[in-house]
Amino acid sequence: MMEYSLGEGNFKDWIVAETKFSPDLLGKGESIMYLGNGYMGLRSATEEPYLQETRNLFVNGTFNKAFPNEVTELPNIADSTRIDIRVDGERFSLELGKTNEYIRQLNLKTAELTRNINWTSPKGKELRFQFKRFVSLDNLHLIGMKMEVESLTDTVDLSFDSGINAQLSNSGSQHFLEGERRVFDRQFLSLTQTTSESNVDIAINTMHRISKNGKETNNIEPRMDMARRSVWLTYDIQLEPKEKLQVEKLTTIYTSRDNVLEESSDQLEALRDYSLNQLKAISEKGYDKLFEDHQHAWKRKVWDVYNLDVKSEYSYDLLALRFAIYHLTVMTPAHDDRMGIGAKALSGEGYKGHSFWDTEIFILPFFTYANPKVAKSLLTYRYHGLIGARRKAKENGYSGAMYPWEAAWPTDGEVTPLFGDIDIVTGEQTKIWSGLIEQHITSDIAFAVFQYYLVTGDHAFMERYGYEMIFDTANFWASRLEWDEKRREYHINNVIGPDEYKEHVNNNAYTNYMAYFNLRLAGRYYELLKDNNPDLLYRLNERLNLKEPYHDWQRKADNLYIPKPRKEDLVIPQDDTYLSLKEIDLSKYKNQEQVRGIYRDYNPEQINEIQVTKQADVLVLLYLLEQTFLKEDFRLTRELKHANFDFYEPRTLHDSSLSLATHAILANDIEKADLAYALFKEATEIDLGPNMQSSDEGVHAASIGGIWSSAIFGFAGLRLDGEKLRINPSLPKHWDEMKFTINWKGQPITLLITQSLLTVKAENKEPISFETFGKAYSCTDYLEVPI
Amino acid sequence: MMEYSLGEGNFKDWIVAETKFSPDLLGKGESIMYLGNGYMGLRSATEEPYLQETRNLFVNGTFNKAFPNEVTELPNIADSTRIDIRVDGERFSLELGKTNEYIRQLNLKTAELTRNINWTSPKGKELRFQFKRFVSLDNLHLIGMKMEVESLTDTVDLSFDSGINAQLSNSGSQHFLEGERRVFDRQFLSLTQTTSESNVDIAINTMHRISKNGKETNNIEPRMDMARRSVWLTYDIQLEPKEKLQVEKLTTIYTSRDNVLEESSDQLEALRDYSLNQLKAISEKGYDKLFEDHQHAWKRKVWDVYNLDVKSEYSYDLLALRFAIYHLTVMTPAHDDRMGIGAKALSGEGYKGHSFWDTEIFILPFFTYANPKVAKSLLTYRYHGLIGARRKAKENGYSGAMYPWEAAWPTDGEVTPLFGDIDIVTGEQTKIWSGLIEQHITSDIAFAVFQYYLVTGDHAFMERYGYEMIFDTANFWASRLEWDEKRREYHINNVIGPDEYKEHVNNNAYTNYMAYFNLRLAGRYYELLKDNNPDLLYRLNERLNLKEPYHDWQRKADNLYIPKPRKEDLVIPQDDTYLSLKEIDLSKYKNQEQVRGIYRDYNPEQINEIQVTKQADVLVLLYLLEQTFLKEDFRLTRELKHANFDFYEPRTLHDSSLSLATHAILANDIEKADLAYALFKEATEIDLGPNMQSSDEGVHAASIGGIWSSAIFGFAGLRLDGEKLRINPSLPKHWDEMKFTINWKGQPITLLITQSLLTVKAENKEPISFETFGKAYSCTDYLEVPI
Repeated sequence: MMEYSLGEGNFKDWIVAETKFSPDLLGKGESIMYLGNGYMGLRSATEEPYLQETRNLFVNGTFNKAFPNEVTELPNIADSTRIDIRVDGERFSLELGKTNEYIRQLNLKTAELTRNINWTSPKGKELRFQFKRFVSLDNLHLIGMKMEVESLTDTVDLSFDSGINAQLSNSGSQHFLEGERRVFDRQFLSLTQTTSESNVDIAINTMHRISKNGKETNNIEPRMDMARRSVWLTYDIQLEPKEKLQVEKLTTIYTSRDNVLEESSDQLEALRDYSLNQLKAISEKGYDKLFEDHQHAWKRKVWDVYNLDVKSEYSYDLLALRFAIYHLTVMTPAHDDRMGIGAKALSGEGYKGHSFWDTEIFILPFFTYANPKVAKSLLTYRYHGLIGARRKAKENGYSGAMYPWEAAWPTDGEVTPLFGDIDIVTGEQTKIWSGLIEQHITSDIAFAVFQYYLVTGDHAFMERYGYEMIFDTANFWASRLEWDEKRREYHINNVIGPDEYKEHVNNNAYTNYMAYFNLRLAGRYYELLKDNNPDLLYRLNERLNLKEPYHDWQRKADNLYIPKPRKEDLVIPQDDTYLSLKEIDLSKYKNQEQVRGIYRDYNPEQINEIQVTKQADVLVLLYLLEQTFLKEDFRLTRELKHANFDFYEPRTLHDSSLSLATHAILANDIEKADLAYALFKEATEIDLGPNMQSSDEGVHAASIGGIWSSAIFGFAGLRLDGEKLRINPSLPKHWDEMKFTINWKGQPITLLITQSLLTVKAENKEPISFETFGKAYSCTDYLEVPI
Repeated sequence: MMEYSLGEGNFKDWIVAETKFSPDLLGKGESIMYLGNGYMGLRSATEEPYLQETRNLFVNGTFNKAFPNEVTELPNIADSTRIDIRVDGERFSLELGKTNEYIRQLNLKTAELTRNINWTSPKGKELRFQFKRFVSLDNLHLIGMKMEVESLTDTVDLSFDSGINAQLSNSGSQHFLEGERRVFDRQFLSLTQTTSESNVDIAINTMHRISKNGKETNNIEPRMDMARRSVWLTYDIQLEPKEKLQVEKLTTIYTSRDNVLEESSDQLEALRDYSLNQLKAISEKGYDKLFEDHQHAWKRKVWDVYNLDVKSEYSYDLLALRFAIYHLTVMTPAHDDRMGIGAKALSGEGYKGHSFWDTEIFILPFFTYANPKVAKSLLTYRYHGLIGARRKAKENGYSGAMYPWEAAWPTDGEVTPLFGDIDIVTGEQTKIWSGLIEQHITSDIAFAVFQYYLVTGDHAFMERYGYEMIFDTANFWASRLEWDEKRREYHINNVIGPDEYKEHVNNNAYTNYMAYFNLRLAGRYYELLKDNNPDLLYRLNERLNLKEPYHDWQRKADNLYIPKPRKEDLVIPQDDTYLSLKEIDLSKYKNQEQVRGIYRDYNPEQINEIQVTKQADVLVLLYLLEQTFLKEDFRLTRELKHANFDFYEPRTLHDSSLSLATHAILANDIEKADLAYALFKEATEIDLGPNMQSSDEGVHAASIGGIWSSAIFGFAGLRLDGEKLRINPSLPKHWDEMKFTINWKGQPITLLITQSLLTVKAENKEPISFETFGKAYSCTDYLEVPI
């Protein structure tokens, strides 16, 4: 029912389309076609309502905890997109009457959603509907909508209700006090909301412009209505055959988190007036002009910046990459460094808008390389999060900064829920341990800072934020390690690694290596600062109360147990017991339609005893550590990658959407080109594929980051090599050419790759070309990269 | 779409039926066919869900205030009635496929709801569905459901999800913390909830019994699932042609308001276990046996008690009266004297489950005369409410008991919301003044106590509860009256009378007369006790700190201004200014489809200036005061009734459902027999009529009380006459015979009325007959009524 090849001309490979309407499979289109601008995300529920719809609007950073026994989440803001349409008194719905033509399209280039319908009412009258909408990238507070209805054959009595509805909740949890509802001048509707616990004010205003046959009219006086938590207008219009009704609906949304207003005595009223005035100011422009501004913003801020192109006989690949960039843009709060990226972006209630390691490991690299300003904002969010991370460390009896597994507002600290899905053995809810013992997130963030610094050379960031984050995460690890007296080494016991099918394991390879990395990195930066910036080091010493940490970090790293590859087969044990667990036939769960199907047959305790891996674990380690200075410590030979890939890939169910991209990149590294492409393709299909329910709870943000990563770090072979940038392209056989722009040490570099040639073009410099035969080329000579 | 003549044989005039399904007009059937037992009310949303449905389950007394700026209300309890059915993977919905046969019936006699459907799926397979359910009157905590599906033509893959869903809210306001969800033994599902503010625990348990072709089977292993606030099982069953699936679903509901448990350390867990054990204990019986117990309870507790019959060519009238008794039974918490009756019964969110004067003036008379034990419980609820009434008086600067306009839990006090619908002039919400200035409720309750005492002679009630209520309400009025120095009399300024279209009026006739009545009644009882029970009077004096109230009450009553009939036309002025307001053409708003249509053209301020009345006001006065000892003070001649009826009826929009019954009774009194019947009929049609949206927010409890009142006080002409019972029948021309049983001074009396004969039959006595020709007959001689 999804179609990706309908774009033509300027829009070739830009159109994500839905060609058949299915009332029971709405989640797919709602999610993957959702609109947003980082400030807000509007799930693409249709104007006319359906039973199975999920109507969501999220504004980043408005976290609230609805009830004492729940965790904070992004609340579902009042909706202004629903329009209840009646034709001769009968409800317009594609479940009723007859749908003669139907197409819904998300234009990735213009970020506009359109829907064209030819429909015959149950009474037999034929009408044409067109719906358009966008969430402006030019004015972050604006939702523009346009509806056109044409009666094709008969005189019809058209009627519609349109307003603002705040009866929505998050699956039953209501976050908002009922606020004020108002109609001004029978035209401007206003609704305010305040979150129940975090006290965030929301002001939503909307207005309609009505045109008949292309001429705006004020003659159609609407009825006004209110019900609990809602306010709306009802318009009644008669259309003769061939007559057209056009309705523009413009909505503005402001929240007290925006900081647009000075402190005032009645903050909420001031916010409402401000929002209303903004709406009045722009309402004169109308949909078309406002859309034009939005479209220009997308060109300027997105497509010109990333400059991505693929020439290939199979143009889906390019569309998938554009889809990734589209979503990476709409999900990311580039405007506010107090906000992060949710695991389901802004497209659904799944994971409550919380940020996981998904951001740092699977999404951030895109921004670090291609839009470092945004990467800086996202890392600054983690810097603000030190408050919560330090509290978490203290609460758990540790020192330093222990980052929350799930993060919301920076000061919230740990917000992972305590209970999850059903345990099929006990019939109870399963306990979620991640918030307590999935601890690698702390070094993942340290890694992201390190990577950002290497790529951008942004000393200012490091001095203001970065060193403090690295030192205080190292402090956490130093306090976290457990001395094993018998083996005379430090262990990290009772953790969950990236493979969440293994709870309470000891010495998860990924966790131990990354902790080692974190400690060593802190030590290295400490030395660096001692030489280059003793003043800063003095200040950090004061603030963090470091007390000779350097020696502690070094000593602990020196004595930390790092699981080494088994001599016989080079396999790195995922943890202390994994390799001795029983093996079962996993074919039932590999490539299944439904993820986590294994939970239908086994409960967590039982899965813990099986040699099965949810998602890339040891393999993420091999992918990340290659990019660090640790290569002197650990020789990541091709053989090592090969051995571990061959061992873990068959045992990995990819039951997390984070998994495939890593395997795709690693497959590239070990020259399994076909498999690499297949895994890339599979990663794109997590959201774009034929499974109509996989995106119900929202798009998979990390997987979308992984689409870009698979192409850039996989096919284009971009990799950090020590402090240098290494490029080792290996395009899929059917790709003729690939182009993209990244930033290296503050300057944009455009790479043009064919099957045989790599051309590197920096600003104001002549392009340089190299022949590519799977060899590694370093750009450092050319770019003179300092660190 | 509703049909009332389908009952046959034993069920003639017992069947309320819906013969066509209309997905946009669901409210009517959901409300008027709702099931209940006073403990709980289950709105009749269908098993399969629809977009426009309103799915409600209320348990009486579980009031909660969801947010600080809202008022307390009956929360929408978790639902166990929804069953999502799929046929060959396609959703079963009457909006899809083809419905060949459809009928839904509420059997008033057995209080069972059944639905029979013959449906062809979109894939062309024909199936027969039968759904049944009841809310047990035998076991107040039980909901029984039964579903039968037969494949008529093909092999089908049937699948359904069934469980407990607590995602529901009250129009967006969530009252419950998310509780525990559990599955026990893959069969018993459990969900607990706790209200957010009032801390009421709810435990819901449900279970399924599956039969194939009439044989119970445990072979069909369901899948178990949980989502936020919900838990369910999924069954997959293949049916060959002519095979039948039967599913029984039994649900028990217990709350901490039930007081079934001893105090315990974990109240909620204890409640869940108790509820679960109760369910396990009854689950063996199965639907049919449990239904039989329920049906017997209806016979024993309801139909045998009220013993109502009407013989008439037009049998709708009898059905309407049975409909009234059905609803008066299911709405009333006869089991618990801490609970009242909501204005929309237990059938919808309208009026939030709050009790108004509707109970005392329009519903209670039914119980007072026909089931005094229940009347006592309802009045005891008001006695418990003295706590809140005294607080309200104090908060408003008065003494005594000032009853809340809207009442919830007895200790809550005033719970009227502060804002209502849209003001079409300002675009703001209108302010609701009733909670502050609609004060006649206090004397309405005093009146109800008086009436109860007269009819039942229940001295014990009076001594324990009644006198205290009468005295303390009189205390309120004594403090409330305002001395007008110029006119040397007491006034009651700035009130709303029964006519809520007039706000802030002075000396509303109804209010002033009823206050006068209240003061005089207190004085009279005071004298009575002084003579007969000085001990009780002493104790009441102590408790209420009465300090010579008697003289105060008498003096104030003596000097209270009572609007007298105008000399020229005997019209009693509704208030100080009503008769001088401007008159407009009201024909647009009389007999309109939509109530309160006048608000579409005028805002409250403007309506205040027009000679228009929302509902019976002066006329209620004429109806009630006739029943009091005040007849010595006010001669209620037929001419006075006539004059005021003729004046006010054309000015009354009946924009409250409380209005018609009063006018019907008065029309009877003034011998407008046709009009009396027309008004009775109109009153029945508030819920039973062809308007498919008038019951969307719930049935009209007071109007339903009014159906019974119109027949008994109107057609049968039953009326208190001083301390005697007067019967002055005047049956509608097409009624041959009417029969019913009431209680008088503790003993049941059956009245049999024909067009010419009244027969009175008391227990263990020979029946006595009188000829009736519109004359008044007093039963007091025969019954020897003392007071």
